[in-house]
Amino acid sequence: MTRAEAVQCDRNDPLAPFRNRFVLPYGVIYLDGNSLGPLPRATAERVAAVVQREWGQSLIRSWNDHGWIDLAARVGEKIGRLIGAEPDCTVVADSTSVNLFKLLSAALALRPGRRVILTEAGNFPTDLYIAQGLAELTGCSVRREADPLTALNDDVAVLLLTHVNYRSGAMHNMASITHRAHDAGALVLWDLSHSVGAVPLSLAEDDVDFAVGCGYKYLNGGPGAPAFLSVAARLLPGLRLPLTGWLGHAEPFAFADDYHPAQGIARAVVGTPPILSLAALEVGVDLMLEAPADALRAKSLQLTGTFMRLVDDLGFRLLTPTDPARRGSQVAIAHPDGYAIMQALIERSVIGDFRAPDVLRFGFAPLFLRYADVWDAAATLREVMQSGAWREDRFQQRQVVT
Amino acid sequence: MTRAEAVQCDRNDPLAPFRNRFVLPYGVIYLDGNSLGPLPRATAERVAAVVQREWGQSLIRSWNDHGWIDLAARVGEKIGRLIGAEPDCTVVADSTSVNLFKLLSAALALRPGRRVILTEAGNFPTDLYIAQGLAELTGCSVRREADPLTALNDDVAVLLLTHVNYRSGAMHNMASITHRAHDAGALVLWDLSHSVGAVPLSLAEDDVDFAVGCGYKYLNGGPGAPAFLSVAARLLPGLRLPLTGWLGHAEPFAFADDYHPAQGIARAVVGTPPILSLAALEVGVDLMLEAPADALRAKSLQLTGTFMRLVDDLGFRLLTPTDPARRGSQVAIAHPDGYAIMQALIERSVIGDFRAPDVLRFGFAPLFLRYADVWDAAATLREVMQSGAWREDRFQQRQVVT
Repeated sequence: MTRAEAVQCDRNDPLAPFRNRFVLPYGVIYLDGNSLGPLPRATAERVAAVVQREWGQSLIRSWNDHGWIDLAARVGEKIGRLIGAEPDCTVVADSTSVNLFKLLSAALALRPGRRVILTEAGNFPTDLYIAQGLAELTGCSVRREADPLTALNDDVAVLLLTHVNYRSGAMHNMASITHRAHDAGALVLWDLSHSVGAVPLSLAEDDVDFAVGCGYKYLNGGPGAPAFLSVAARLLPGLRLPLTGWLGHAEPFAFADDYHPAQGIARAVVGTPPILSLAALEVGVDLMLEAPADALRAKSLQLTGTFMRLVDDLGFRLLTPTDPARRGSQVAIAHPDGYAIMQALIERSVIGDFRAPDVLRFGFAPLFLRYADVWDAAATLREVMQSGAWREDRFQQRQVVT
Repeated sequence: MTRAEAVQCDRNDPLAPFRNRFVLPYGVIYLDGNSLGPLPRATAERVAAVVQREWGQSLIRSWNDHGWIDLAARVGEKIGRLIGAEPDCTVVADSTSVNLFKLLSAALALRPGRRVILTEAGNFPTDLYIAQGLAELTGCSVRREADPLTALNDDVAVLLLTHVNYRSGAMHNMASITHRAHDAGALVLWDLSHSVGAVPLSLAEDDVDFAVGCGYKYLNGGPGAPAFLSVAARLLPGLRLPLTGWLGHAEPFAFADDYHPAQGIARAVVGTPPILSLAALEVGVDLMLEAPADALRAKSLQLTGTFMRLVDDLGFRLLTPTDPARRGSQVAIAHPDGYAIMQALIERSVIGDFRAPDVLRFGFAPLFLRYADVWDAAATLREVMQSGAWREDRFQQRQVVT
């Protein structure tokens, strides 16, 4: 692909108008929307209204008058549509980590006699850590396997997988794995943090039991946006969650001494949600709902495929599958000096990120990126590699967060 | 006290200048700062800067460049000063409910062989519910007692109490109860949700083991502001928390497969905190740190005492202790038609709240309320009661949230 061809692709791109719905600093090519999505233009106004008009002027009455009390359910329901969940099965609450804890615990309760959480080595750390913490608390055990499907047996209560790997961008086949786990009598919990807003999802169709996901990546919900969780309708009636907070009570405002869970997914709310952050998340979700999922996926695959081809002679080891069916919306390439190379790129306003020990990650969010951005990013990487610019001393010193 | 005397008190009030640091709708007397504190004037600008300048312009780099990665620790440390905790022992994380779960679990781990969480009947529901959820998960048990101190024995791992009761406003003696629990070999977890920012606290001096608290009441951190937790320094080295999220890892950006807790209180962070809500909380906390704690307490006692005296002939049952040493910063009065009476008050721009079945709650936040407000609120309540205005039909229909 030449740059002129890339520009032509942008002219023909049905998603092109979405770019202007975001604040994107001039000259920056932002390939880190898989870590923190950019600011939707409408968010600043919405958050200001929540702060000044709702909180400032209506004060406590906003819980009724401005619908704060329903906000977690409302945004959850919208996310449910994005992920193809059944109605009334998805809610916004807490963080991805906390939601993992709730649903892993719920899964164990639904499979008495089975005491193993089975997961994948190299899964996102918080998934592994939360499973480990739950195991220490309850005496269940965690198995990490390179190929967890080979370890499905009668002890496995729940298979915990991330749909799109945070590091490599490799994507699991959700339907097929879910069915194999079910055949073995296990439940499946999918972490959608790197999928939602980036790849098509059909949880109901795929018969998924449980899912969690992140609000601040491809959903563009803002830094630390609250997370979501989703549960198959068939599992809701008997769902036992360990974090029994007052807002998940059947009658939170009865202030009764005994806990009785709310009907359905509402019981998964624990404490009062952070309304400012939740309101910002809704703007990102609303924007994503406007975009046709098939157009997003088609463009995502073209962006990632183009980038992989444009950089394939630069001496990197490609970690991302070239098979379109097996990748999400990011490209990961490895290099022993990956950290310094990424710093040199960032200095040139091409922003990706680095994951230890040697991975350069580039997220390609189809809602705001242009084909020309992909071409320019690849050209910049070529210049960095060919000039050796990354060898400069100042790129070698690591910061804590990248 | 006459109205003229109240006005004179306001003239002499050293805290009077703080009122102008808040947005308070014209004509409203806001006595619900114990449920949702009002908007500090500086908050709108701060949140807008985080949204537009930090998120919008600096994007992912804000984790370093704008200190997001340290924000939970920084705001926690400031709250630690407000509550008299030791340095490096307090952090902002999750909700009060989730933090209760973490610390109750940690307490049980520190008292092997003891399997009882002892608490008070009528404690705030989420405290009871969370204990109940943990008990169902782990097999420990929960005892609720009218006078829990009489039930301290060798089975009690942790005594869970709320310092100022959410309903009555009655305040426990933190030092004395903590010492009695320690004498019985138990740990103590104090819920400071209705204390912090309202009454003097000295956790370190009182030898408190654990505390949690809320950011959106007297700290004026905004709706659903994140909560905090605090742990005595002596308990930190062996502290085992069940929610082992990636941001509480010793090296979160090493992305290792095994969980190793961070040093100290940093391990109590689980997932990525909601930065917009957390930034708003910091503004409220900063404002509270400017106010001298003794002046706050003196004014609070005068406000609550004055209100109790002004309404004591109106036919209500007083739930709040008249002994200054035994009350927080709110007044609760009961009446069989409490709901309708509160609605009539709210229509007259005196905003308190109602707690089933019959309690009218009035929070007196000394940072922004005037003595004249107390006088006017009492006069309005007198008018409502003497006119029977609350008997009108439209005040009888209950809304879900009040």
